[in-house]
Amino acid sequence: MNFKFKIGTKVLFGKECVKENKAIFKDFGKRALFVTGKNSAKASGALRDVIEVLEEYGIDYEIYDRVLNNPTLENVKEGGEAARKFNADFIIGIGGGSPLDASKAIAVLARNDIEPVDLYKNVFENKPLPIIAIPTTAGTGSEVTPYSILTRNDIKTKKSFGNEDTFPVVAFVDARYTESMSDEITIDTALDAFTHALEGYLGRRSTPVSDILAVEAIRIFGECLEDLLINKFDYDIREKLLYMSMLGGMVISHTGTTIIHGMGYSLTYFKDIPHGRANGMLVKEYLKYNYEAAKGKIDNVLGLLGVSSIEALGEIIDKLIPKKPLLTKEEIELYASLAMKQNSTLSNARTVVKEDMEEIFKNTFKDG
Amino acid sequence: MNFKFKIGTKVLFGKECVKENKAIFKDFGKRALFVTGKNSAKASGALRDVIEVLEEYGIDYEIYDRVLNNPTLENVKEGGEAARKFNADFIIGIGGGSPLDASKAIAVLARNDIEPVDLYKNVFENKPLPIIAIPTTAGTGSEVTPYSILTRNDIKTKKSFGNEDTFPVVAFVDARYTESMSDEITIDTALDAFTHALEGYLGRRSTPVSDILAVEAIRIFGECLEDLLINKFDYDIREKLLYMSMLGGMVISHTGTTIIHGMGYSLTYFKDIPHGRANGMLVKEYLKYNYEAAKGKIDNVLGLLGVSSIEALGEIIDKLIPKKPLLTKEEIELYASLAMKQNSTLSNARTVVKEDMEEIFKNTFKDG
Repeated sequence: MNFKFKIGTKVLFGKECVKENKAIFKDFGKRALFVTGKNSAKASGALRDVIEVLEEYGIDYEIYDRVLNNPTLENVKEGGEAARKFNADFIIGIGGGSPLDASKAIAVLARNDIEPVDLYKNVFENKPLPIIAIPTTAGTGSEVTPYSILTRNDIKTKKSFGNEDTFPVVAFVDARYTESMSDEITIDTALDAFTHALEGYLGRRSTPVSDILAVEAIRIFGECLEDLLINKFDYDIREKLLYMSMLGGMVISHTGTTIIHGMGYSLTYFKDIPHGRANGMLVKEYLKYNYEAAKGKIDNVLGLLGVSSIEALGEIIDKLIPKKPLLTKEEIELYASLAMKQNSTLSNARTVVKEDMEEIFKNTFKDG
Repeated sequence: MNFKFKIGTKVLFGKECVKENKAIFKDFGKRALFVTGKNSAKASGALRDVIEVLEEYGIDYEIYDRVLNNPTLENVKEGGEAARKFNADFIIGIGGGSPLDASKAIAVLARNDIEPVDLYKNVFENKPLPIIAIPTTAGTGSEVTPYSILTRNDIKTKKSFGNEDTFPVVAFVDARYTESMSDEITIDTALDAFTHALEGYLGRRSTPVSDILAVEAIRIFGECLEDLLINKFDYDIREKLLYMSMLGGMVISHTGTTIIHGMGYSLTYFKDIPHGRANGMLVKEYLKYNYEAAKGKIDNVLGLLGVSSIEALGEIIDKLIPKKPLLTKEEIELYASLAMKQNSTLSNARTVVKEDMEEIFKNTFKDG
């Protein structure tokens, strides 16, 4: 037994957690930069709740709401400049994975005069600005991970950076803020959370503690499957999904992801398939591919989900998401070669060669 | 669902973890004060391993090895003075619960010119010195908790303080360092760890995440029972016990303890019964007392341990430890009234009045 454990984030989970723990904001300084996308921070009610607290304490703020869906290096550069210009003491990221991930990059760039591409060096002269993270989706788990996943147009894929200093210091995790998600986004992001737990559990970097958390997340996903299939998204299920996604974040903070994420990035980059949905599409063939290498654990996953077989799980996921596109041979070759370059590929249970990925893509998208 | 989660400690778990992660020591400064008792830091080999690293990096050190078994306020005052005099940048606590708990008090007192009794205010002007914790027993879990439990002669009991700044920053958790424990101490401390998980799981402050960790700790304790009974303490079982105790620490970091600990303190203070053993003695009557209030969870505990009943568990624990002493009526009254004053009593599953505690003491120590 040989492992590391570190979650750098204090989590405050539950209804009205912002209001009930509002005094925390005072500890962060006098000037806050919100980092958000165009919609969810407002629509969720989270932005309004936090502004109320900031105004009560006389904390000055500015809103940088230009985070893109799948933020790019250029995007976080602009955010970093906004933080410096405003002379922010801390960052409040509100949103799905994109704003939360962008917050981490912006927090680093605000304190370090470096080119965004140098974020990937993962060593920074100055500590990033402290981050408060408030998720409005239940998928990314980014509120409890150090990872920031950015789109790199230079190498046509997404790539993550992060070190122990890029954990959000505090996460306010309130399922009310996820109620504004559409059914589609609810499902897509739930699939993202599920694959975090799944890949963390089956991957080579799994640890005893991450396994405990992963098993619980997978069990909860199983409890939610029926409601996901009929789009029954009441508060209770939203809270379960959010809890599961937080657990998934804690898992990948220790394990990273593996080939589902690495392969899914191309589906998002080139085909504009939402991240979690792209992951979900790959689950069935991923499990079949890894079955011999991780038999005991995969059988356990199926049991936890209450499904009879990998095929049955695949059918459920197919019902949850739109029809898969067709991929050309050239696309599959390109995507596989890009995914092979992801570090996370090395953590996959079974040792992967490019042809394996092509096969997984082919089997997944054969019916297009 | 409404909970907080925070573990402020980075855990490095496994054989040779000090050597394999030695570069970490460089980040802590140029002057280290070791805080230890007389024996275990040396006997375990931990002190030697760390000194080797410090010397390699030219980090100056001094050894404060005067921590008592069950350290007092007076004791940590002296330690705080030693840290100030040496102008320590950080503290390295090595040992069982006593040195690790003392480290936290010393780290606060080194930076804050206050009377030791003011540690209990739990708010300090200056952040404590950073602490590295290295356990040499598998019981306390102190390496991953913010708690420092000190003996107060003024009120004739033990009382804990701690806040988010008193988490050790790093814990090196290597089962080799627990190999020098006697069989007796191995068993006593294992019972301490078990009661952390048990009380955390059954208590009112339990959270979804602490429950996951507690269940795993209890399950592992169940796996160890047979070997504990025959004193078979090879490396594998020591590692399991150490992992369980770390999980127990993570649990109580969120939940605190309840009446077993509160009641056990008097047994240690007045009767000199080792802490974990005192806890173990109380388990059976504690479970019987709480059964109606926490039936589902207690049944689950029995299942996880693989025992048929509370009585059966009591018999196993009785086999593990020496015969209980006889208590007089006056002693029982005194101990109950002291335990009623512990804050942790409020977290017990069933609402406790003094007569309940007297009853538990009476039933536990009736056969003396």
